[in-house]
Amino acid sequence: MTALRDTHYMRQAIGLGARGLGRVWPNPAVGCVLVRDGRILARGWTQPGGRPHAEAVALAKCDARGATAYVSLEPCAHHGLTPPCAKTLINSGVVRVVTALTDPDPRVAGRGHAMLRAAGLEVVENVEATAARAMNAGFLMRLEQGRPWVTLKLALTLDGRIATATGESRWITGPEARRMVHAMRARHDAVLVGAGTARADDPDLRVRGLGITHQPVRIVAAPRLDIAVHGRLGISAQEVPVWLLHGAGADAGARQRWRDAGAELLECPANPDGLMPDETLQILGQRGITRVFCEGGGHLAASLLRAGLVDELVVFSAGKMIGAEGRAALGPLKLAHLHDAPQFKLDAVRQVGADIVHIWTRGTA
Amino acid sequence: MTALRDTHYMRQAIGLGARGLGRVWPNPAVGCVLVRDGRILARGWTQPGGRPHAEAVALAKCDARGATAYVSLEPCAHHGLTPPCAKTLINSGVVRVVTALTDPDPRVAGRGHAMLRAAGLEVVENVEATAARAMNAGFLMRLEQGRPWVTLKLALTLDGRIATATGESRWITGPEARRMVHAMRARHDAVLVGAGTARADDPDLRVRGLGITHQPVRIVAAPRLDIAVHGRLGISAQEVPVWLLHGAGADAGARQRWRDAGAELLECPANPDGLMPDETLQILGQRGITRVFCEGGGHLAASLLRAGLVDELVVFSAGKMIGAEGRAALGPLKLAHLHDAPQFKLDAVRQVGADIVHIWTRGTA
Ligand SMILES: NC(=O)c1ccc[n+]([C@@H]2O[C@H](COP(=O)([O-])OP(=O)(O)OC[C@H]3O[C@@H](n4cnc5c(N)ncnc54)[C@H](OP(=O)(O)O)[C@@H]3O)[C@@H](O)[C@H]2O)c1
Ligand SMILES: NC(=O)c1ccc[n+]([C@@H]2O[C@H](COP(=O)([O-])OP(=O)(O)OC[C@H]3O[C@@H](n4cnc5c(N)ncnc54)[C@H](OP(=O)(O)O)[C@@H]3O)[C@@H](O)[C@H]2O)c1
Repeated sequence: MTALRDTHYMRQAIGLGARGLGRVWPNPAVGCVLVRDGRILARGWTQPGGRPHAEAVALAKCDARGATAYVSLEPCAHHGLTPPCAKTLINSGVVRVVTALTDPDPRVAGRGHAMLRAAGLEVVENVEATAARAMNAGFLMRLEQGRPWVTLKLALTLDGRIATATGESRWITGPEARRMVHAMRARHDAVLVGAGTARADDPDLRVRGLGITHQPVRIVAAPRLDIAVHGRLGISAQEVPVWLLHGAGADAGARQRWRDAGAELLECPANPDGLMPDETLQILGQRGITRVFCEGGGHLAASLLRAGLVDELVVFSAGKMIGAEGRAALGPLKLAHLHDAPQFKLDAVRQVGADIVHIWTRGTA
Repeated sequence: MTALRDTHYMRQAIGLGARGLGRVWPNPAVGCVLVRDGRILARGWTQPGGRPHAEAVALAKCDARGATAYVSLEPCAHHGLTPPCAKTLINSGVVRVVTALTDPDPRVAGRGHAMLRAAGLEVVENVEATAARAMNAGFLMRLEQGRPWVTLKLALTLDGRIATATGESRWITGPEARRMVHAMRARHDAVLVGAGTARADDPDLRVRGLGITHQPVRIVAAPRLDIAVHGRLGISAQEVPVWLLHGAGADAGARQRWRDAGAELLECPANPDGLMPDETLQILGQRGITRVFCEGGGHLAASLLRAGLVDELVVFSAGKMIGAEGRAALGPLKLAHLHDAPQFKLDAVRQVGADIVHIWTRGTA
């Protein structure tokens, strides 16, 4: 019974934590539920910008003496900009703490749990660990591999085309799917496109139509900085961050123009194919980005796939056919054999408006 | 209550009828349930070859006096190779007949219902008509438009490829999806491929691995009859029918060789693009085919799509990527604008093994 109850409240905590996705980076998105005598006393989740932490938010709302705290990640144990949450929990009079994951951050890494136990609290670990890992995939990826989690979005016809031969692509998918894309953008720290897409579409890349004020960073991989500064990104760079990833050889005048427009410039290692994907993502990781939503185009997507850097694929399939002349979703992958093809396992599939969305994660089933 | 009961038993009758799909052509696949005092007395469905009819099968199994007969299609009223089912029902002592559809066959077309009423039976029509129309789509298409229902199957990577640049395509989808393809073949009267596929893959096109003895007709669209007779189709043409659709210019020697191998030759109107799709399907309709399962290749599929002749699309998507060099699923569709793209509305989507299958029917949602 206790185990069942623990699972139940931990799921709630994880769900609450997910509200922070896309807006708490570089911090983890954590949720916290305080429960006493089978009643929820308070809920909390990491606030925009990453502070205050979930535990502090929940504890500030109630008298938690004698309660159990469900926290989707090990409470922190170090003095940062906020006092350590383990300490706050101890001071609150909570008697039991249930967590889903040990925080791999070397400043925590078990010390939070130890601090709680040392103070005499009962601690239960690893409850709903799989779900918590999935929700925190970006935070964990950055800590463990130094790079953000990469979600690649594709919106295609049934024959895998993204536009007609003349480039007509409005709209392949319907309004419900496009709305879902905006909701997905909002749950990522950054949206990424290639310079080709920036040049062809002059995209805005902001989250629109959802009543969301928070915006992900807009990133363009533009080795030569060959993008007009008077487009939608340049014009809005003062309002919502624009980061341009460029190579060492990028034109000095273009650098200055983009800096003047308010964009941030990040120099990344490049080779003749473009920016080097591994190194470039490491740089984004160093800047604190934990979740990147890549919206194409086909050449950038192919380069990420070739490097094995796509963790999640979100495919929208529209009930249309364009045929062989249409533009392909992906650039060349340079496969020698079918068994070298990047593989993904199905995570979820459902109808969205007139289209379907299917979500896949790296690996085989 | 009566209406609810009628719906319930009619769904059963339609489900029973569906067992005949692929093996009763040119007849409709009909199901029949006999019910008295809330008890099912007997079930029947059209037998392989199209005879005996569902009603006769069910009535032969019980004493139906006082019962209600649920029949998914109006009982026939004409003396064919079997006595009219309306007459058999009347003679059986059934007092009430519930049907889903009026049979559009001009020899029936309401006469079955009228015959029953004239004999004093209660008749209720149009129960679960939509489901019955869907199940009988092939039979109805042939009667109403002279051609079979066309299902197009595509098995693709997520980027819409069917093979690598070197032609490697075994296997894009997993064993569960391939098994489902065999089950789908079995529910169609014929399997159709283009000559390009016949040449490249030397396919067998039989239903395998399902313990099914019945086989669909295997049809190849081969304008020039340019297919080696010593392949899998030629070798097995005596066991399971092979029909070759060719143009007027097909080589006389090739005709003779295929005839000797046991294939049937059907001459169809052709133009420089290949066989004319409308006319060719009319010829299959004249031969009694009500449901065709087209398995490609890309050029034949494109030609059917361009002509607006694909009624149902079955897409298997595998969690793999091949990239731009891979072979495309479809040939050219020659679209001028995106809004000219053939459109389909979602019918069903689900996981099958490691892949997904999504089924679409012609039209917009
Ligand atoms: N329907 C949709 O969902 C959708 C979504 C996105 C895009 N699109 C379409 O896709 C087209 C653009 O796609 P695209 O493939 O031509 O361009 P792309 O992938 O957006 O951009 C390619 C460019 O990105 C830069 N780049 C930096 N690092 C790279 C790397 N590692 N690998 C590859 N490129 C890298 C290079 O810029 P430089 O050339 O400046 O060196 C390269 O030429 C447009 O027509 C757009 O409309 C459609
Ligand atoms: N993975 C899969 O699911 C799958 C399924 C099927 C095929 N394939 C692959 O697809 C490739 C073959 O496809 P394909 O597109 O080259 O050939 P295809 O569509 O199978 O056949 C094209 C040929 O069919 C004949 N034809 C007759 N009427 C036609 C019409 N109205 N429109 C177009 N063609 C007509 C013509 O034959 P003639 O040339 O003799 O005049 C034409 O060249 C093979 O590599 C095969 O392995 C893969």
